[in-house]
Amino acid sequence: MQPPIASPELTRNLKIIAFDADDTLWVNEPNYIDVEKKIHAILEAHIDADTISKHFYKTQINNLKLFGYGAKGYMLSMIETAIELTKGEVTGREIQQIIDTGKQLLDFPIELLDGVREVLDSLAHRYELMILTKGDLFDQESKIARSGLGSYFHHMEIVSEKDERTYQRIIKRYGLQNEGFMMVGNSLRSDILPVVHIGAKAVYVPYHITWGHETVSDEQLIGKSFVQLNSLRDLLPFFPD
Amino acid sequence: MQPPIASPELTRNLKIIAFDADDTLWVNEPNYIDVEKKIHAILEAHIDADTISKHFYKTQINNLKLFGYGAKGYMLSMIETAIELTKGEVTGREIQQIIDTGKQLLDFPIELLDGVREVLDSLAHRYELMILTKGDLFDQESKIARSGLGSYFHHMEIVSEKDERTYQRIIKRYGLQNEGFMMVGNSLRSDILPVVHIGAKAVYVPYHITWGHETVSDEQLIGKSFVQLNSLRDLLPFFPD
Repeated sequence: MQPPIASPELTRNLKIIAFDADDTLWVNEPNYIDVEKKIHAILEAHIDADTISKHFYKTQINNLKLFGYGAKGYMLSMIETAIELTKGEVTGREIQQIIDTGKQLLDFPIELLDGVREVLDSLAHRYELMILTKGDLFDQESKIARSGLGSYFHHMEIVSEKDERTYQRIIKRYGLQNEGFMMVGNSLRSDILPVVHIGAKAVYVPYHITWGHETVSDEQLIGKSFVQLNSLRDLLPFFPD
Repeated sequence: MQPPIASPELTRNLKIIAFDADDTLWVNEPNYIDVEKKIHAILEAHIDADTISKHFYKTQINNLKLFGYGAKGYMLSMIETAIELTKGEVTGREIQQIIDTGKQLLDFPIELLDGVREVLDSLAHRYELMILTKGDLFDQESKIARSGLGSYFHHMEIVSEKDERTYQRIIKRYGLQNEGFMMVGNSLRSDILPVVHIGAKAVYVPYHITWGHETVSDEQLIGKSFVQLNSLRDLLPFFPD
C-alpha cells in the first residue's frame, strides 16, 4: 500500500505510539454480538430480538454515567432490559443464564488481528509503545494478559473516557509535545477526533463492526487530518527500517 | 499524640505520599453494609439475612478473578446469590430492586473522614500527594470527583490489585527509591504489608469496619515495621512545619 501522506510528516518528532486494544489489536465486538444473540435466544419466549436490542442500547446509554464502559455494566444493563421488557416476568433462572452467558465476555480467548505481531515487532525497538484503552480496568488488564502482547508495551493506560482532556493528561504525564504522540485505533470518536483536535497524530484502522455509541457523523470529519488504513499491517510502510 | 517512632525516620528522603481512598479519606464500607441490609429486607420473604451474608461473601470471592473489586461486581454477585439461594424463585421485580439499591453504591454522597482536609492542606505544599486506590476505575474516579479533594493530588493511580508488584511498578514509574514512597491506608493486606515488604514506608490508620477479604492474621504482622495511628489527623505531628 502506498502511504497516503508522506512518512516523514507522520513520524517527525514521534516518541510514543499508542494503540487502542479492542478491535484494534484483537477481536472484541463480535464477542459482544455473539453474547447478545445468545441472550436473545434465552429471552425469545418473552420478547423478540429487535425489541431487546433497541431497549438494551437505550438502557446501556442511560447507565453509562453510572456504570462506565465494560462487560459488567453490559450484564447489569441486560438484566434491567430483560426485567423491564417482561414487566418483571423474567425468571431467576433466565437471569442466571444471562449472567452465565455474560461472563463469557470476561474470559473469551483473545484472537489477534491481522499484522499485529509484525507491526509491534517492528516498532517496539524504535519507539515507546503504549496500550491506551478505555473500559473496565480489571477486564482490560485481563485481556492484555490473555493476549500475550504485554511485553511489547512500555506503558499501559486504561482510562474511563478517551477525550481531549484524557489525551492531554497522558501526553503531559510522559513529558511529550503533542506531535510526539501518535494514536492508532478503530474508533473515530475515541481514538481519532480528540487526538486530531489537540494536534497529535492519529491513524484510523476501521474495524468491520463498530458499537453504535462510537460512530460519528460525516460532518464531524470534514477538514480533519488523519491517516486511514485498511489493516494495521499497512502501518509498516510509514516506518521504513 | 506522641509519634511512636521518630519523625525524621519516617520522612527521610520522602518524595511521594500516597493515600488509599475508601475508608482512609472517606466513608465507604458503611455504605456497602447499608446496601446489604436493604437487600436482606428485599429478600426476607425467601431467605434469612445470615444465610445471604455467608453465601454472598463466598460468591464475591469466587467471582473476584472474573469481576475484580467494585460495586458492579458486588451487584452481580448479589443477584447470583439471590438466584442460587432461592433456587431461581426470586422474581424479576426483586432483582430490579436489588439493582436499584446497588446503584446507590455508585453515587452516594462522599463523607470525608476526620482530619482529612487539614492533613492534605498541610502536606500538599511539601510533598507530591497521590491517591492510590484499587477497584473499579469508573467508580473510583467518580468518588474522587464527588469528594472534592481532586485538587490536592498530583497523581491518581487506580489499580486492580495492591500487591508488591503494583507498588514496585508505581515507585519505578515515578522514578523513586523505595524509601521515597509512603503509603497511608486502612487495609493491612493492601496498604501496609506489601509496602513494608518492599522497604517503602507505611502508615496504618485502621477504620472501624474492614471487609473480611482485607483482614490479615496476627502472625503476618510479626516483625513488620509500620506506624499505626488512630486518626489521619495524627499524621500531622510527624510533619512539623
